[in-house]
Amino acid sequence: MRSTSLDAALALDESDDGNVTPVTMLRVARPLPSDWALLPMDCEARSQYSVRFCDSLLGDDSTVLQEAIDDRKALLVTTPTVDRMYGAAMRAALKKTNAVSMLVLNGSEETKSMELVESVCKEALSHGLNRRGLLIGFGGGVCLDVVTVAASLIRRGVGHIRVPTTLIGQIDAGIGLKGAVNFSGKKSFIGTFHPPEQVLIDPAFLQSLPRRFLVAGIAEAVKMGIVRDPALFEMLESWSPELVMSGFGGPAAQGREVLRRAIWAMLDELRKNPYEDQTYERLVDFGHTFSPALEGAMGFEIQHGEAVAIDMALSATIARSLGLIPPEGCERILRVLRTASLPTFAPRLDVPLCREALIEASRHRGGAMNLVVPAGIGRAVFLKHCADLPDSVLEHALASLSAVPGES
Amino acid sequence: MRSTSLDAALALDESDDGNVTPVTMLRVARPLPSDWALLPMDCEARSQYSVRFCDSLLGDDSTVLQEAIDDRKALLVTTPTVDRMYGAAMRAALKKTNAVSMLVLNGSEETKSMELVESVCKEALSHGLNRRGLLIGFGGGVCLDVVTVAASLIRRGVGHIRVPTTLIGQIDAGIGLKGAVNFSGKKSFIGTFHPPEQVLIDPAFLQSLPRRFLVAGIAEAVKMGIVRDPALFEMLESWSPELVMSGFGGPAAQGREVLRRAIWAMLDELRKNPYEDQTYERLVDFGHTFSPALEGAMGFEIQHGEAVAIDMALSATIARSLGLIPPEGCERILRVLRTASLPTFAPRLDVPLCREALIEASRHRGGAMNLVVPAGIGRAVFLKHCADLPDSVLEHALASLSAVPGES
Repeated sequence: MRSTSLDAALALDESDDGNVTPVTMLRVARPLPSDWALLPMDCEARSQYSVRFCDSLLGDDSTVLQEAIDDRKALLVTTPTVDRMYGAAMRAALKKTNAVSMLVLNGSEETKSMELVESVCKEALSHGLNRRGLLIGFGGGVCLDVVTVAASLIRRGVGHIRVPTTLIGQIDAGIGLKGAVNFSGKKSFIGTFHPPEQVLIDPAFLQSLPRRFLVAGIAEAVKMGIVRDPALFEMLESWSPELVMSGFGGPAAQGREVLRRAIWAMLDELRKNPYEDQTYERLVDFGHTFSPALEGAMGFEIQHGEAVAIDMALSATIARSLGLIPPEGCERILRVLRTASLPTFAPRLDVPLCREALIEASRHRGGAMNLVVPAGIGRAVFLKHCADLPDSVLEHALASLSAVPGES
Repeated sequence: MRSTSLDAALALDESDDGNVTPVTMLRVARPLPSDWALLPMDCEARSQYSVRFCDSLLGDDSTVLQEAIDDRKALLVTTPTVDRMYGAAMRAALKKTNAVSMLVLNGSEETKSMELVESVCKEALSHGLNRRGLLIGFGGGVCLDVVTVAASLIRRGVGHIRVPTTLIGQIDAGIGLKGAVNFSGKKSFIGTFHPPEQVLIDPAFLQSLPRRFLVAGIAEAVKMGIVRDPALFEMLESWSPELVMSGFGGPAAQGREVLRRAIWAMLDELRKNPYEDQTYERLVDFGHTFSPALEGAMGFEIQHGEAVAIDMALSATIARSLGLIPPEGCERILRVLRTASLPTFAPRLDVPLCREALIEASRHRGGAMNLVVPAGIGRAVFLKHCADLPDSVLEHALASLSAVPGES
């Protein structure tokens, strides 16, 4: 019997025994409006995703990837470095799945662009990805950025899974909704909010990460500790040198706890404002006001996390000058950064660059500066307007940070 | 007094008299989860927009555009044809606003591409558009597609207003959430769901529209009449020749009523499934199953609306063969199309092309064919599976349509 489904209020559906059962469908037209001048349209996009911790994601016994992909066609996107280290294991793990092809993309913070996004789209098209198709981003922040933007555009949006292999990817860049690429010389000008289906976190990937990337990643964990989690901050005070040394392999329990707390804090902040349209007062912007200008000025010679650390040090020193944090609090912040081998100053950071950064931040934050500064360990306040930060305070903070030996 | 806002549970805000009033802020951290293996993240995007009818949008007395733009920086994107006809009036109307620049884009259904999107992004960047910035699309479907995709990408999404100047733009392509461009030879492969802020409908624009575009646009109104609004269908039976002749200028009341009903029907259908993630059974897909293949095969020599009309004629004839619609119902459908000077057959449409189209449709509709066929005037049913449409039925329908004089 034919399973044509009838609309209006009735649909026919074939049940298991081959009989046709009528199914009620919600297809009721609204009455015509009384006022035709303005027709309202409501639309809501609901989505949910999860961050899943897994041990030995690429191990022989793991079925996590297989379950995440299910029976769908997928395109895995990775980087030359990750491919060299994990490509063989990844290919073995994916053998159990249906139809996965692999694209190795060579990009950096400097070169991430629409061309890279388009090369993913082209591969997806030639691979015959349909609307149920899936992208898998397996790499660091750049790879995940490119995959997120591509997933948002292919057939007006397909699902994607992220497997971040860097610390910053696992606790920050890889677990939110955002993806962006540079455009016409402007960092991250083109992008999207496109939630992933799942983010798979395997701490084992961190063990092969170069020391400098681990250190830079620690900055984002320090950030969450300062603005909202004193326990996380204290763990970093005690353990960051060991965790950097071991690639979060030891002490294992502490490494895991730092990851968990940093990820949880990030998700909890994102949850309140996932599309950044609810408020311009975002705690997660701590360390992200002066740092974009510094990254721009230093031509990608500086790691993102290093610039964030310098921004946090400056913001803390500003807060101390304004009497918003006690001197001991500020000292603890500077100390935790230095303990983790993070920089707290760069000579390129001067008053004009800071002012430029604040203007750009205001442009991005609906007209208000909203500089996040710590008000203790685990809490922060927002300096809303430019007038809240006199030049004298800024100069004094910069001078005090530059005076520390080894920081100029 | 400094207006630093304190977080935790308290923020300071400056009231009008300069005093500082504490404001309670919702910044309560969730307790840590008990199970760390899987951290859930909920995110919801709520949005509302409106379709506004306005007379003489570009008239001296109109403040509609001015109010829609408010004090924001805006970039208006239009086409050479629209610029030639309305550019002067548009520039005069925009003089009242703050800072609007204009970009004239030359594109067609055939050439709409990421390059066009990128040229809008480039102009937005050089114009200093911030996150509060606005794009205005003023033109037909291609212009609105490009603007919608660009708006979704600039700074991870800025607002946009649409002023559709074609019939198909006003009742179909311009009032939903979708925008897409061609990619690597594939029609609309790259795109987005990005709701506009407002869609401004001025029927006066239709009076300058070439006859062939008006006829093509009527097809989308006929579609909504057939699947859900018998009154709209009857109006088109009576008035479509006059409305095409007058560019919806006369009879004016009937012209307006057709626009209103077609728009309302479209919004009501979209409302149930704005992101096309709720169901693959979409009434608005009527006429849009065989037509993409036909458009592809005829290399953009055929208007979208003409291909839709041919698809609707075929779908109605299939429904008659299957006994899903009485012969008189099918005849009325074919007659309303021909009355509006729409085609009901193209020789290029043969069984292999139809099968190809059905496979592609299934790919796009989660694996099910979901061919929409009329079950009367004002109601439709879905043929879910390929087996619901035997080759003999398809061949018979094609033969019957090709036999009509003037249709081959």
